[in-house]
Amino acid sequence: MDIECEKEMEEVMKAVMVTKPGKLEIREVEKPKVADEDLLLRVNMCGVCGTDVHMFYSEKPYPWMEQSYPYTPGHEIVGTIEEVGENFDGHDFLGEPITVGDRIAPYPPIPCGKCYYCRYLMQPNLCKFPPLERKTPPLRGGFAEMKYIPKEQPIFKIPKDMPLEVAVLVEPFATALRAVERSFQPGVPDRFEGMGPGKTVVVQGSGTIGLLSVIVSKLCGASKVIVVGAPEFRLKMCEEFGADISINIEEVKAPEDRIDEVKKQTPFKEGADVVIEAAGVPQAFAEGIQMVRRGGTYVEVGHFTYQGEVMINPQILCYKDIHLIGSWGYSAPEFGPAIRILNSLRRKIPLHKIVTHKFPLEKALEAFETARKWNCMKAVIVP
Amino acid sequence: MDIECEKEMEEVMKAVMVTKPGKLEIREVEKPKVADEDLLLRVNMCGVCGTDVHMFYSEKPYPWMEQSYPYTPGHEIVGTIEEVGENFDGHDFLGEPITVGDRIAPYPPIPCGKCYYCRYLMQPNLCKFPPLERKTPPLRGGFAEMKYIPKEQPIFKIPKDMPLEVAVLVEPFATALRAVERSFQPGVPDRFEGMGPGKTVVVQGSGTIGLLSVIVSKLCGASKVIVVGAPEFRLKMCEEFGADISINIEEVKAPEDRIDEVKKQTPFKEGADVVIEAAGVPQAFAEGIQMVRRGGTYVEVGHFTYQGEVMINPQILCYKDIHLIGSWGYSAPEFGPAIRILNSLRRKIPLHKIVTHKFPLEKALEAFETARKWNCMKAVIVP
Amino acid sequence: MDIECEKEMEEVMKAVMVTKPGKLEIREVEKPKVADEDLLLRVNMCGVCGTDVHMFYSEKPYPWMEQSYPYTPGHEIVGTIEEVGENFDGHDFLGEPITVGDRIAPYPPIPCGKCYYCRYLMQPNLCKFPPLERKTPPLRGGFAEMKYIPKEQPIFKIPKDMPLEVAVLVEPFATALRAVERSFQPGVPDRFEGMGPGKTVVVQGSGTIGLLSVIVSKLCGASKVIVVGAPEFRLKMCEEFGADISINIEEVKAPEDRIDEVKKQTPFKEGADVVIEAAGVPQAFAEGIQMVRRGGTYVEVGHFTYQGEVMINPQILCYKDIHLIGSWGYSAPEFGPAIRILNSLRRKIPLHKIVTHKFPLEKALEAFETARKWNCMKAVIVP
Amino acid sequence: MDIECEKEMEEVMKAVMVTKPGKLEIREVEKPKVADEDLLLRVNMCGVCGTDVHMFYSEKPYPWMEQSYPYTPGHEIVGTIEEVGENFDGHDFLGEPITVGDRIAPYPPIPCGKCYYCRYLMQPNLCKFPPLERKTPPLRGGFAEMKYIPKEQPIFKIPKDMPLEVAVLVEPFATALRAVERSFQPGVPDRFEGMGPGKTVVVQGSGTIGLLSVIVSKLCGASKVIVVGAPEFRLKMCEEFGADISINIEEVKAPEDRIDEVKKQTPFKEGADVVIEAAGVPQAFAEGIQMVRRGGTYVEVGHFTYQGEVMINPQILCYKDIHLIGSWGYSAPEFGPAIRILNSLRRKIPLHKIVTHKFPLEKALEAFETARKWNCMKAVIVP
Repeated sequence: MDIECEKEMEEVMKAVMVTKPGKLEIREVEKPKVADEDLLLRVNMCGVCGTDVHMFYSEKPYPWMEQSYPYTPGHEIVGTIEEVGENFDGHDFLGEPITVGDRIAPYPPIPCGKCYYCRYLMQPNLCKFPPLERKTPPLRGGFAEMKYIPKEQPIFKIPKDMPLEVAVLVEPFATALRAVERSFQPGVPDRFEGMGPGKTVVVQGSGTIGLLSVIVSKLCGASKVIVVGAPEFRLKMCEEFGADISINIEEVKAPEDRIDEVKKQTPFKEGADVVIEAAGVPQAFAEGIQMVRRGGTYVEVGHFTYQGEVMINPQILCYKDIHLIGSWGYSAPEFGPAIRILNSLRRKIPLHKIVTHKFPLEKALEAFETARKWNCMKAVIVP
Repeated sequence: MDIECEKEMEEVMKAVMVTKPGKLEIREVEKPKVADEDLLLRVNMCGVCGTDVHMFYSEKPYPWMEQSYPYTPGHEIVGTIEEVGENFDGHDFLGEPITVGDRIAPYPPIPCGKCYYCRYLMQPNLCKFPPLERKTPPLRGGFAEMKYIPKEQPIFKIPKDMPLEVAVLVEPFATALRAVERSFQPGVPDRFEGMGPGKTVVVQGSGTIGLLSVIVSKLCGASKVIVVGAPEFRLKMCEEFGADISINIEEVKAPEDRIDEVKKQTPFKEGADVVIEAAGVPQAFAEGIQMVRRGGTYVEVGHFTYQGEVMINPQILCYKDIHLIGSWGYSAPEFGPAIRILNSLRRKIPLHKIVTHKFPLEKALEAFETARKWNCMKAVIVP
Repeated sequence: MDIECEKEMEEVMKAVMVTKPGKLEIREVEKPKVADEDLLLRVNMCGVCGTDVHMFYSEKPYPWMEQSYPYTPGHEIVGTIEEVGENFDGHDFLGEPITVGDRIAPYPPIPCGKCYYCRYLMQPNLCKFPPLERKTPPLRGGFAEMKYIPKEQPIFKIPKDMPLEVAVLVEPFATALRAVERSFQPGVPDRFEGMGPGKTVVVQGSGTIGLLSVIVSKLCGASKVIVVGAPEFRLKMCEEFGADISINIEEVKAPEDRIDEVKKQTPFKEGADVVIEAAGVPQAFAEGIQMVRRGGTYVEVGHFTYQGEVMINPQILCYKDIHLIGSWGYSAPEFGPAIRILNSLRRKIPLHKIVTHKFPLEKALEAFETARKWNCMKAVIVP
Repeated sequence: MDIECEKEMEEVMKAVMVTKPGKLEIREVEKPKVADEDLLLRVNMCGVCGTDVHMFYSEKPYPWMEQSYPYTPGHEIVGTIEEVGENFDGHDFLGEPITVGDRIAPYPPIPCGKCYYCRYLMQPNLCKFPPLERKTPPLRGGFAEMKYIPKEQPIFKIPKDMPLEVAVLVEPFATALRAVERSFQPGVPDRFEGMGPGKTVVVQGSGTIGLLSVIVSKLCGASKVIVVGAPEFRLKMCEEFGADISINIEEVKAPEDRIDEVKKQTPFKEGADVVIEAAGVPQAFAEGIQMVRRGGTYVEVGHFTYQGEVMINPQILCYKDIHLIGSWGYSAPEFGPAIRILNSLRRKIPLHKIVTHKFPLEKALEAFETARKWNCMKAVIVP
């Protein structure tokens, strides 16, 4: 009887459940049985993304879909394989052998594999049936002791000696990596357009995606990276990780002054070669397209949730002969270089310091509040 | 004495002079002496561009510059070489021998050749010192009997048997050609992005640039070209020249209905592969980015003058993983393929019919009014 | 007993079996049972590809793999769905509903879906485990009454009213389409590199891929397409389908003379903007890189089998600042536009005439001999 | 009289004159008078390029042109403005004010500015009338006390505090920079093709261009750069400047073993993402295309002079779906980022150590012999 009882206790796990906008509970839920080719992950660490924050507090983060409740948040996940189904194929997405006890990072979306975008365009990041619409609660998120991984979900082995604080950055790093890579422009060799060695780059936003975009821009050889954001704490961190100049929007309050400052900092006073919008604020978008030089490149990667509208003058886009590029997520293979690059970079720069705050599952609400108040860089849950 | 008098009379020519917004005069001005390496052109025909119309009626067509008065409008020019300077080098921009009596089309801007854009980016179409700012009145425009061509201005020989009504289209055709060419996307072979064979293309605007964009899109192999514009007369012309479908904005009045109609017409109901904004209306911009599918390409070529602002949601650009490309003018070499392609196309489609209205110099005001009222496709001045 | 016997007879089908290089038999083989999600196709028509010919006569068409015998040739297949497995999902690759009796074209390779190229690069056409290596004989080829289609093999619905003679071109057309699309070059708008409106294009080779490359080049707006090949019969056909000029290698025998002729035909006597190698002859490769202008683009699509080596001077590639692009097959989605474009083109040009010779299964050897002797354009098997 | 004499003496300068292949003299020549808008440069340092060596010893370095004798070699020049013509415009190519006493680097080719490539393609590096053909001896080269700079020749200001040993690298660095930039591939964001963060790169050749290509590849974020060359001395230097791995061709003598080693070093054992041929040896070309993975990019930048031919199998280019890109020189604007990047890099890595040997004008022959024998990295003349 005791044994029975113990066994039953084993079959229970804790998970954060968001029950309505701004409300969450820590619940005990049944630990799932692992089917066939699937696996169960013991979550080691899970980042709190700006999108998680928006989704938690917002009534309607995506105009085109309904949020269903309750749900478990968290998609920046690193964990250890706890259990595998009997037909689990023993390899990660890239063919590396993996087994119980290995550490992996799951690619969060589970592309349908059949829609126009998945099949025809081979852009699973644009999958028509966004993963959140598929009813996999309560175990889809990483704010929980365990996460269930169906066979369709790509998983990636994490090097054994990579600190958790670096491994938890794989997902946001993949986002920044793709965004910056999209700013490589055709014609680069002779037209000097887009990202590359010697370029001047502005990153709008000093949160995690902004910081990682600074790092990737420097990695791509940018000569001067200017970060525009706040507060001082985050800007200092961006500078520590490579930003050459920072503009504090709490100090330089007028957008025109910030635009002027950017122009002054570029070799020909014409504006930046590349501007990356990672602030997720509509006004930043209108401001940023004035920071890019004619012929330059603008990347919009900050607006994963709806944050309102802004007035723009379409003539400026025509006049500037601009390349304006949206960057939505990343496809699964992006995790390959993301892990490889992080693993190499961490030996040169203290990437682990990007995780500034850690919270146990029970303090998930505090984690959201901390992340919302800008007084941290990256908050994580350690279940 | 009589001879003197006759000679003096020869030294006078007529030109349209715009004296303030909405006002013009026909003046007799001194025929210029041809210096050194320059030449004098007898204008055969000069098109009335939408930009000419905006500049004529507007107080401030470009927010960043002052209009100086009086000036002679007209930049879609074809003419015959009347006289050459004693050191004229005898060749057009592409090395073709030319002489008095030959027909040429001048590239309208006279790039400074020294600024960041001219020299460093080799993008003379982005020249920092726009030609209109340089004080060359009164003989800079084509609404005159003669136009003075300094040696710095690129000129292009027109084939002898090309009708004037086709030759006058070289400049707007170069605009449309570059705009459509900019919609070719990297990754086209395997990602099916951008312009190319089999694509669905929307052209917003049924004026000359819209019509020519329809023609170039079909030339590039687009399977289905949808034109969105008005009035019926222009849409019919677009259809005659290759548009597969037209949507009349005077009939389908709600933007949402037009967006829906475009989606219905695309193979996967996801929106067009490419949308080209050639209407020059801020609201068209906001509407057009909703017509393009995720991963698709949007070209903004319609806003050569300031037409106001519009509200947009930046999230849509991020979510759509869009390529949004401004296209400002064209560089001089674009006249080469423009002439070659027009000369070949005119044998297959009746390009000369695009010129719907002809006016003598004296009726320049009527030409402006006609062009403004949309009751024509292309009005031209025949001095 | 009679019924049994009849049933057994039904279970038998005819198929061509190649038993060693240059030898084939028509055998009766067991009609396969359709498993689960698979389907069985009744072959309506199957093209004889140059690669089929090389594989049939050659000892070692691919240096990197062994040919296993016996095998059934034929991969340019169009057929009618004869039978579907009980869990067949009822849709083609692009989501179109299909059922027994519908006509489809199968994408020939069956990508493994797991290798570096399939997963990481999302380039299934580069799959590490080429389909021919997987042991699926005897029913992998189209020279048979039936072909078995496993669920992993992408299939594409053919429009009901598309003639078989056009439908059988889907596979080679996809090859030509991708090859030409790969010649679109970054920087096209302002650098005039690569394929596009107004360009001069050379196609080396006047076989099916050459002819289809002519058609696609014209579709992309090329002003002048020069085909270099033989014999007269094929060149005339290329001209009928759009080639502006043909150079008969049996008449203009010296490569230098052919190179000179190409240069003479280009606007600046510098060579072609784009050259497409579709002859599959090593010497053509060395000749072709001399036909392309500096800054131009060369596509190598003709060498699907090993045809020997050739001497080249690497300096020419450096000096020419060339883009030389290999094009190996096509990914599955390419069948989508291939079908759509063929269906639209066939109303304008008599595509069905490309099929010049038809043979029943029993005359497969004659089909190979005909295809080998160049006295046809496209030979097909009609089982 | 004495003064006269002195003045006459001032009017004479020393210059190396190559009189026939392998022979040179140090001559006293008349110091040129500076015309109008031109300037006279006092050469501070001039590098000995591999091309200088080939040209010096070879009968016919370029198959398409005759070498005229005598000539002054040297195009990697840095010098101080000695004298300017009376109408000298006072600015460098990028608009920076310059005057007597300032240090500049001249862009070696003097593009004609009128040919197809200069005007139409805006690729002055492909100018039809290569500068060496224009008869400007004896003062065209940098192995002299002075060099005459006509107004058509672009010049670039060198930062005051940049050591001569770094400034002399501007020209070869521009070559490497453009070569590597050309390996950025369209589709990079989602297809992982071409240069960029995380990539594996092979550089063939460990001379100056090879070494600088290593540096630029690391600058672009390459994770692993493998240099293939000799001797040990040069390879060690490549490693000091960032190469992760070196393969000594004097030790690993069989090309197949080197190819195997490269594959072993790549994440999926498929070969490198990018291979840069900077050895200038035909056999290296044949070897290198076997080192690149399928879908990868190959840059041919090493063959500025004719070095013979090599056998290749064109099928490999088709099969590999390769992008093979020639890179010939660089356009003038490339000197802008080259100077900016060198000036920033020199604070992090000891670029000045690349200059391993210095010779006075009188020892020019020894300089050639040293450069030829591979026992140095960069030899320079210090007049």
